[in-house]
Amino acid sequence: MQLGRIIGKVWASVKNPGLTGQRLLIVQPVKADLAPGGKCLICTDSTGAGAGELIYWVRGKEASFPFTPDEVASDATVVGIVDELNLGKRSLGER
Amino acid sequence: MQLGRIIGKVWASVKNPGLTGQRLLIVQPVKADLAPGGKCLICTDSTGAGAGELIYWVRGKEASFPFTPDEVASDATVVGIVDELNLGKRSLGER
Amino acid sequence: MQLGRIIGKVWASVKNPGLTGQRLLIVQPVKADLAPGGKCLICTDSTGAGAGELIYWVRGKEASFPFTPDEVASDATVVGIVDELNLGKRSLGER
Amino acid sequence: MQLGRIIGKVWASVKNPGLTGQRLLIVQPVKADLAPGGKCLICTDSTGAGAGELIYWVRGKEASFPFTPDEVASDATVVGIVDELNLGKRSLGER
Amino acid sequence: MQLGRIIGKVWASVKNPGLTGQRLLIVQPVKADLAPGGKCLICTDSTGAGAGELIYWVRGKEASFPFTPDEVASDATVVGIVDELNLGKRSLGER
Repeated sequence: MQLGRIIGKVWASVKNPGLTGQRLLIVQPVKADLAPGGKCLICTDSTGAGAGELIYWVRGKEASFPFTPDEVASDATVVGIVDELNLGKRSLGER
Repeated sequence: MQLGRIIGKVWASVKNPGLTGQRLLIVQPVKADLAPGGKCLICTDSTGAGAGELIYWVRGKEASFPFTPDEVASDATVVGIVDELNLGKRSLGER
Repeated sequence: MQLGRIIGKVWASVKNPGLTGQRLLIVQPVKADLAPGGKCLICTDSTGAGAGELIYWVRGKEASFPFTPDEVASDATVVGIVDELNLGKRSLGER
Repeated sequence: MQLGRIIGKVWASVKNPGLTGQRLLIVQPVKADLAPGGKCLICTDSTGAGAGELIYWVRGKEASFPFTPDEVASDATVVGIVDELNLGKRSLGER
Repeated sequence: MQLGRIIGKVWASVKNPGLTGQRLLIVQPVKADLAPGGKCLICTDSTGAGAGELIYWVRGKEASFPFTPDEVASDATVVGIVDELNLGKRSLGER
């Protein structure tokens, strides 16, 4: 999984039926120090995460597990909202 | 999923039977500010998207979901056409 | 899928039985303007493509679809030979 | 698989049910000389590895194999703790 | 598949049961001219390859095919030992 922050949403009226009813979040990947790093991507959501929240997402085939038995044509899904990162002495609370 | 813009098409008469009848679009990945970023790729299409449109595509095993039960030998498929991106204050309409 | 050009072959007498009888092509990825870009890789072939031809390949689980029901241990397979790329005004014929 | 070192943990109270009860480790990828290289990622764990240990992880669909028959929505899992790396003459013990 | 050279081994006493009895090789990816390029990785082996040999490996779900019906939690497996690369005029023998 990778860390990221939700920075926006996508609206799409024409889309694959397997994505109907799914929220599409724009996620900015972040590094362990929470600085942005890497290209934004679009994720489906299984957590109810909102704008600005620190989350982690899963990619690949596993991105469709949270929606089983539906076959959601997604390759990236938000699966958790981060409360706190513990990096040795440093502890970064988010909530 | 990732954002991209359709910039062309590919014609191929010799191809795997699993790709017969599939449109093959050339997609330029774009960043959240819609500037081009990254290498072009070839996608199959499940939306009817045309040249110049802003789309998002799915990669990997999920790229064959829209064609189930056919086994289409594709690893990247356009699954939605973007109406609007919402990035906090900025809202980028496409339609 | 991604565009590439076939630049060579690999001979291997010791290999996984699932690859027996498969041609192994060395593919140089190319960009939309057909200039080389990125690292070479080894692909199995489902098209009969030869040295110097412009092709596109599929990677991941889908790379074994053309060989179903055989379980070929390949993660990259040539699935089409390009006749022509259409990029707006420019049209790049290959055949 | 890739080599990495465990540098921290993630706490998340809101998460996909498929991740309930899983430890989430922050892993810093390392190179063959054990110097850090590449972006940190979050891994589930099948070994009991602790902070500071040198491990290797598996990614993709295989990352959920250790939890079969549970469908854990993970794309990266620690599957081994390294005792020793042997690189020709050099041997790097970890334990 | 990608080309690489075997540069070492990994010993791990604590590991996922799905990896028990598997040799773990450290592979340095090489380019078509056989110069090293890219990050080392750890591969399981289905060929009996030894230190210094030029090999190619498969990654992803296919990496577990050679071990079917065992579910080996590996995402990278050596599937062939290269005898010779043919790049147009140049022919690079390895054996």
